[in-house]
Amino acid sequence: MTTICVDVMGGDREPQVVLDGIAAALEADADLSVLVAGPQDVVVPFCAHHGRARALVCTEAIAMDEHPAEAIRAKKDSTIVRGCAAVRAGEADGLFSAGSTGAIFAAATLGIGRIRGIKRPAIASALPGASGRQTVMLDLGANADVRPDVIVQFAQMGRAYAHVVLGVDSPRVALLSNGTEETKGSELALSYRRALDEADPDHAWFAGNAEGVDLLAGTHDVIVTDGFTGNVALKSLEGTAKYLLREIRRLTSESKRAAMGALMLKPVLKEVARGLSGDELGGAVLLGLKAPVLIGHGDTSVDAVKNGTIATAVAVRGGLVDKVAQAITRGID
Amino acid sequence: MTTICVDVMGGDREPQVVLDGIAAALEADADLSVLVAGPQDVVVPFCAHHGRARALVCTEAIAMDEHPAEAIRAKKDSTIVRGCAAVRAGEADGLFSAGSTGAIFAAATLGIGRIRGIKRPAIASALPGASGRQTVMLDLGANADVRPDVIVQFAQMGRAYAHVVLGVDSPRVALLSNGTEETKGSELALSYRRALDEADPDHAWFAGNAEGVDLLAGTHDVIVTDGFTGNVALKSLEGTAKYLLREIRRLTSESKRAAMGALMLKPVLKEVARGLSGDELGGAVLLGLKAPVLIGHGDTSVDAVKNGTIATAVAVRGGLVDKVAQAITRGID
Repeated sequence: MTTICVDVMGGDREPQVVLDGIAAALEADADLSVLVAGPQDVVVPFCAHHGRARALVCTEAIAMDEHPAEAIRAKKDSTIVRGCAAVRAGEADGLFSAGSTGAIFAAATLGIGRIRGIKRPAIASALPGASGRQTVMLDLGANADVRPDVIVQFAQMGRAYAHVVLGVDSPRVALLSNGTEETKGSELALSYRRALDEADPDHAWFAGNAEGVDLLAGTHDVIVTDGFTGNVALKSLEGTAKYLLREIRRLTSESKRAAMGALMLKPVLKEVARGLSGDELGGAVLLGLKAPVLIGHGDTSVDAVKNGTIATAVAVRGGLVDKVAQAITRGID
Repeated sequence: MTTICVDVMGGDREPQVVLDGIAAALEADADLSVLVAGPQDVVVPFCAHHGRARALVCTEAIAMDEHPAEAIRAKKDSTIVRGCAAVRAGEADGLFSAGSTGAIFAAATLGIGRIRGIKRPAIASALPGASGRQTVMLDLGANADVRPDVIVQFAQMGRAYAHVVLGVDSPRVALLSNGTEETKGSELALSYRRALDEADPDHAWFAGNAEGVDLLAGTHDVIVTDGFTGNVALKSLEGTAKYLLREIRRLTSESKRAAMGALMLKPVLKEVARGLSGDELGGAVLLGLKAPVLIGHGDTSVDAVKNGTIATAVAVRGGLVDKVAQAITRGID
């Protein structure tokens, strides 16, 4: 039995959405049990009516816009802080929350702790791509400043994640840069390039440079960058998706014919939006910690909670933490 | 009469596309004359049949994938090198080419020269946004490494462009970062932030930080960053647009109903794609040079050439170069 702690107060949605997601996950996965973190009146009745669900009663919740470090210091009885403590104590094997990424990152780094030898944990996500091939991208914003030796660790952590969760054999890693030629890059990106070339002189797993246009092309297993560049790139993707869907909506409203077309195309547009929302992927993952921690979008859904909870269990069962630990000492092959 | 040199060999399309674009521009703008740069058999017959068109016969062309610095050194009789020389000699007031951005940037910096006081020219583009409001973004890749004092010049050049070409009064500038709070940023981004705060302590025109999600939101007049980050962000936008349109096409092919919807929505999807392609905007602009130089997309169209040629003339008539020169010495207001 794999036990995942799920935060009922994470995200902008009603706790009921998360509860429905947990119920769906329990139904889909008979080897799953859930430690349900939230207020007494929400989680106790739910657990009374569901097998393999246990309540973790918390009196506080951290809002999406609170300052991460201050919030986790002030709210010791919040679902995020208590969830991390439960994982540390062995009451759960992993954590899923759709709450504030910053707060979860801070609470998990402090409360669950880093794997020995990991210099900096990172935030990763599996981006959708052409022909259904996903690309693991990291760091998405945990570390604005990253040293070259840390980028090499990020590369290895990304490979471990692609291997365990996406099932890719011998994943290859590219460095995000402003051109594919090896001479391209800022001084910082060139220092990353040198470190990766040194770590893998034969390019057994280092695939050279990638560009922003490759992020959703499905052409790379892993794309690595620092948290500043990763955050800018990820938010550029999100902004473009929003822009395009908004423009389609606006232009559609101007023509009856287009409006009818849009109506017929609605399932397609919805599926495209879902592909980018992370709902199917369960969101972002923290790599480098002693247990798997997955973060869903704040604007979560029943499916997102279900898939996120199961993906956390898959990461536990696949030995993600051991693989990350191995990867940074001797590579994953 | 404003004379713009247009490169017939720029881009991946047939010269005929460019010729048709020039003809359309000449028809639309009675105060425009064009110096048509290209091979004799292409440009001479065209100019014989069009008033206000003069031939600049060149025997060479620089391909999109040639190394910029090497190509401009080796191909002295290429349309790009000769076009820049014609601008320097006063035979044309500005240049429009859909050729290699790197080659045009290198040839123009060398051949046309920087405005006195400009430390580094930059590549800017007007991105589409919500409610038709455009956002000028720079640097898009000319300078991978940028010092804080140069970022302040970029900000002023971006303001001059927004003022002259987009008609924005007192444009405001935001700094691209990984969060809107002033404490957010890599060490480098924070050094940019300090320089901008110092240049405009009252925030008369400096609007603080912007995020990747703001690039297409139409919420800022100008967003400034270094060429490394700008290139990654721009290519992330392009990649996302490609991904979404490809996904819509793929999912559409799986359902008859969706296919019919897509057919009815086709004009809308085309308009959305055009909005991002730069066709309406005429592409990117080089700022900091002694004459306006505009760069169209390699995959150009008749409309793109027409609009790009006219936009170059608008930049000449609006005194873009003088405005940029003023902006970096005493601001544009």
